[in-house]
Amino acid sequence: MTNSELPNWEALRDYVQKTRQATSVLATLHTDTKNAVLRELAARIGASSGDILEANTRDVATARAAGLSEAKIRRLTLTSDAVAQMGTGLRQVADLPDPVGRVTRDDVLPTGLRVRKVRCPLGVILMIYEARPNVTVDAFALCFKSGNACLLKGGREAAESNTALFGLIHESLKAHGVPPEVAHLITSSDREEMKALLKMTGVIDLVIPRGGTELIRFVHEHSRIPMVQHFMGVCHIFVDASADISKALEICTTAKITAPAACNTVETILVHRAIANAFVPRLLDRFAKEGVEVRGDAAVQTHSPKVVAATDDDWGREFLDLIVAMRIVDNIDAAIEHIRKHTSNHTEAILSVDEANQRRFVEGLQSSCVVVNASTRFNDGHSLGLGAEIGISTSKIHAYGPMGLEELTTQRYVVIGDGQTR
Amino acid sequence: MTNSELPNWEALRDYVQKTRQATSVLATLHTDTKNAVLRELAARIGASSGDILEANTRDVATARAAGLSEAKIRRLTLTSDAVAQMGTGLRQVADLPDPVGRVTRDDVLPTGLRVRKVRCPLGVILMIYEARPNVTVDAFALCFKSGNACLLKGGREAAESNTALFGLIHESLKAHGVPPEVAHLITSSDREEMKALLKMTGVIDLVIPRGGTELIRFVHEHSRIPMVQHFMGVCHIFVDASADISKALEICTTAKITAPAACNTVETILVHRAIANAFVPRLLDRFAKEGVEVRGDAAVQTHSPKVVAATDDDWGREFLDLIVAMRIVDNIDAAIEHIRKHTSNHTEAILSVDEANQRRFVEGLQSSCVVVNASTRFNDGHSLGLGAEIGISTSKIHAYGPMGLEELTTQRYVVIGDGQTR
Repeated sequence: MTNSELPNWEALRDYVQKTRQATSVLATLHTDTKNAVLRELAARIGASSGDILEANTRDVATARAAGLSEAKIRRLTLTSDAVAQMGTGLRQVADLPDPVGRVTRDDVLPTGLRVRKVRCPLGVILMIYEARPNVTVDAFALCFKSGNACLLKGGREAAESNTALFGLIHESLKAHGVPPEVAHLITSSDREEMKALLKMTGVIDLVIPRGGTELIRFVHEHSRIPMVQHFMGVCHIFVDASADISKALEICTTAKITAPAACNTVETILVHRAIANAFVPRLLDRFAKEGVEVRGDAAVQTHSPKVVAATDDDWGREFLDLIVAMRIVDNIDAAIEHIRKHTSNHTEAILSVDEANQRRFVEGLQSSCVVVNASTRFNDGHSLGLGAEIGISTSKIHAYGPMGLEELTTQRYVVIGDGQTR
Repeated sequence: MTNSELPNWEALRDYVQKTRQATSVLATLHTDTKNAVLRELAARIGASSGDILEANTRDVATARAAGLSEAKIRRLTLTSDAVAQMGTGLRQVADLPDPVGRVTRDDVLPTGLRVRKVRCPLGVILMIYEARPNVTVDAFALCFKSGNACLLKGGREAAESNTALFGLIHESLKAHGVPPEVAHLITSSDREEMKALLKMTGVIDLVIPRGGTELIRFVHEHSRIPMVQHFMGVCHIFVDASADISKALEICTTAKITAPAACNTVETILVHRAIANAFVPRLLDRFAKEGVEVRGDAAVQTHSPKVVAATDDDWGREFLDLIVAMRIVDNIDAAIEHIRKHTSNHTEAILSVDEANQRRFVEGLQSSCVVVNASTRFNDGHSLGLGAEIGISTSKIHAYGPMGLEELTTQRYVVIGDGQTR
């Protein structure tokens, strides 16, 4: 469907209703069946690697013809390694423990009632994402393993790749007797249809937008459904007076250069005045060698003519590039104050051997991840031991930080009595 | 401020900003200080009982003059018992464990990183409620103990009572050196001001509307802030073929009559056909004696001429009155299907000695509380051992079921390393 066509409302109602109905099957599906489907899909993706890459080649050609940016084409493009990685990811999710049915509390109260809290799926999850076709497989795997039905809305530019992958998802479900309605790929790119979906409170339980700020803003503006969002990653590192200089150099450099466009890259480095002369010139040197542009305050600028003068806009800015802001601060309180003012609640790190200052920093900041003496890079689902993640939440409601299988469930009460009344 | 006045935008910005700033003090406030404030407030309320009741009398007189409904006046009216109950509630919250800082995970990963998940406050909570003045004290106590700053917007009709209670809250905070900005009473009833507040994403972290469906709808329509809502309580009881008849009679009767307007009252009773002749006449008899109107399907109507014919609208309806819907079903699957169609995700109960059926019911329904052989009444924070509750969530995101102190917090990651990079 192109943007100029009107949405097919009947088809919309039909697929949403069928997805909703599938939730009751999913909520009690045996773990072994879920894992078998995920392994089946891994095998089918492996066997169909050629077809998937062909479909992707067609998407890339269309995207080039339409003049899409190189960055977008890079995100769209699959390689045989990337396809193999999908299979590995699926097998990893199959190996993870099933959160559904996990008992998190089991008490017998004075009334004689046995009160249990039990993890259960959320229901229907609407996942809205952009060019990357691997998200189709990742999101399906995490939603399915956590017992949730999913509506997957990928970017129009990845339509052929997504359709090829989604065909394999449906085949794998059917091969194990699972109704294929537990997952639905939305191929329309109609904005009215999306707006209608975003108003379906009570039918869709959660919406997860994954993409640029424009997408997040669109969803935020139109959604009446609860949303878990990753808004921005403006990560800070504070290099305290007592920091181990060689470790600090490694952490600050890699936190920028190993993946400058990732949300857990450092965007602002704050350096304690007492260590600035010993540390800043060496760090500037490293950054210069790596081609990183430094935007510094007046004190940082004194250390090298290459430092660009930072503007007010550079503090709290998500560069997502080989650019970093740098500032000298008088003490830890000034660092905490700066971060509080500019935080996106993603990740902040302190490099310090002073335990009192470590504690002060950890208690003084409430970001989703506060790191002591390590890189901001470790705020992701794999590094924190979740096994896989569907995104990183920077808002505190429902989930805060990386969202794995457990964060895609909720907890309900099961109460067993023997005739109690009140 | 009356509805005809324009909001004072400057005052709005000022109090919201001050409340926001107070969150950093609150997040690290010592448990002893929080408990001392709560006990201080209990003592001050006890000592000022006369003043509070006088203020309430003025509210009630104004409400009567304005022609408010008797039901609303009943909710507005305080008695000396109700004031004493506020003090008891405050001491109970002081006695509850502090959720802030609680470590819910503590692992050392293969990278050598120590990963902890730690409970932390949500930030600023906007609580919107109606006539009951005791909510001012309850909501403050739960928000404060869980480390959250709060904006309290009570009903206009309770303005004098709320102002009197809120004065004591501020005095109690100051007496223990806590900045009074951690709590703010919104005395304006301007809808534009409320709409502006409901758009303050990132400044206000959570909105909790507590009141009738009109209030919930207003908040739902205008809010861009995450919301935890209690929408409806349409609780079902299924009386299975094997139910203990005398216990089932007690449970079904009390679940309606002890508090017909509470959200955990039973609204629909489904009876297995095999037990109907033995059970339904006796239950109808009990209901008749207690003045409960029964709206039944054709099969129920055959048991008594007093039974009113149920319409389609009566299934899934929240009567909140001495009215109950009743239906005979062929088997447990028909009961589960009926409930799935009409559930509000609040509470469902099965009365059965058949363990396979108990399991089928518990697994087949995903409401916030599923009860076996006890009353639907037990779905509340006190009965489930939470100590206190700020409301019961019927949506699955963030919290599902009664929300106590823990549900007013979130979990963040604290990662301790020794120079790790990636």
